[in-house]
Amino acid sequence: MSGKVYLVGAGPGAADLLTLRAAAALRAAQVVLHDDLVPPEILDLCTASAQLINVGKRCGRRGRSQEQINALMVWYARETQAQTIVRLKSGDPAVFGRLGEELDALRRAGVEFEIVPGVTAASAAAASAKITLTDRRAASALVVVTAHNCRNESLSETVEPARCTYALYMPGPDYSKTVQGLFESGLEPTTPCAVVSNAGRANEEVRYLTLGELASAKRISAPAMLIVGEVAREHTPLRREDLLSEISREARNPYCQDGFPIQPSVS
Amino acid sequence: MSGKVYLVGAGPGAADLLTLRAAAALRAAQVVLHDDLVPPEILDLCTASAQLINVGKRCGRRGRSQEQINALMVWYARETQAQTIVRLKSGDPAVFGRLGEELDALRRAGVEFEIVPGVTAASAAAASAKITLTDRRAASALVVVTAHNCRNESLSETVEPARCTYALYMPGPDYSKTVQGLFESGLEPTTPCAVVSNAGRANEEVRYLTLGELASAKRISAPAMLIVGEVAREHTPLRREDLLSEISREARNPYCQDGFPIQPSVS
Repeated sequence: MSGKVYLVGAGPGAADLLTLRAAAALRAAQVVLHDDLVPPEILDLCTASAQLINVGKRCGRRGRSQEQINALMVWYARETQAQTIVRLKSGDPAVFGRLGEELDALRRAGVEFEIVPGVTAASAAAASAKITLTDRRAASALVVVTAHNCRNESLSETVEPARCTYALYMPGPDYSKTVQGLFESGLEPTTPCAVVSNAGRANEEVRYLTLGELASAKRISAPAMLIVGEVAREHTPLRREDLLSEISREARNPYCQDGFPIQPSVS
Repeated sequence: MSGKVYLVGAGPGAADLLTLRAAAALRAAQVVLHDDLVPPEILDLCTASAQLINVGKRCGRRGRSQEQINALMVWYARETQAQTIVRLKSGDPAVFGRLGEELDALRRAGVEFEIVPGVTAASAAAASAKITLTDRRAASALVVVTAHNCRNESLSETVEPARCTYALYMPGPDYSKTVQGLFESGLEPTTPCAVVSNAGRANEEVRYLTLGELASAKRISAPAMLIVGEVAREHTPLRREDLLSEISREARNPYCQDGFPIQPSVS
């Protein structure tokens, strides 16, 4: 009877830069926990009975802590009748959105979830500026960082292999050669990676392995993407006893914390 | 009477990972020049009278050259009655899609255009793999490359500042500090950049400047994105005489080239 959490990318802010899949998730949602930057036109897609909760932080205004957001998702999924809970995040959820922490919380609590990707701000900004991001004549790589990185360290420190995720487009068909190149760049054979064929389609296929294993992996369908780095480590399902103790810790009513005044009223 | 070209991201391949704006462009199009990987369900959004042309390349199959695709866009926009020409590209057009070359051709020919961003394959793959791409605990940067890069050079060569585009999230409010950090990383004050506020929304604002100028730029609205690198160089409008000579070169009927058999039949 538990609900399912959809971690949905709202795109950069224009209502029509939402994906059709994201729009469908919003229409189906009983509860929407949304970032502050999500515009009202997007929230208007929700049904009149949906409970909308702004959990966003904004310069100078207090928002909910990440722990509270995690607890709210788990609480709605496990302790209420809500079947579809949308966690609506600006841009693409996987880029600078603390998605990793939200996924960890959902996994620990045994809550089913799905990620709906969105248009990230870099793509939207390039479109607005009428420019490309990569160009075989002038820019062979796109490095996605926050200004915080640049203020506190050099870009060469920021892009140290051990601290980056690499998204490799067109990694096949010769994965052994791709992997060899990554080894020569200093990545270790134990580095986790995920290879995803036909991402987002009905026939999608995901494999979690190490770079060492990928070198000799067989039958990877094209088109594929290769994601390399610590983020791609496969999550071992928790043992039942660990799961239960995590659940009891997470499933406390998040409204009792920190004096937030909203009362849950999900039917 | 010239037509307008929309360079549209089709997303990673699932029909419902298209944006609402992309779907609207397809419904309005008289001509669609599409990549090979775009699925039939997406093309089904076009009207029955729209002319659909597969210009894609695929392993082992010959496609049109980039020059032919450029010429087709220009030709349809200038020499036919088509008002809305969609160039439909897999994923996000700005990421590994030769968008730069297509924009150059449209600019040279004086054709009006607009870019509609899409969900890039990295975001879709991360969603399928149920992972994040950045994580403040484990991955402070996302480096987007092709496997081609990794086979032919080391990753540290690929991410040399002069050969990268940097997409900086949350660059403000103190741009002088952000720019100082970029200078300390080896970027030159003459490096072009584009700062985009409210990307994709009605109130969007774009400024093209150099990093040196950005340090003292005033009144940049949040939320903003900063794109740094050669791709962000502002395009000086061509002089009229240059424009006309380019037009006469580009506007040759592209069907006369290279023995491609398709005949244009736009009403």
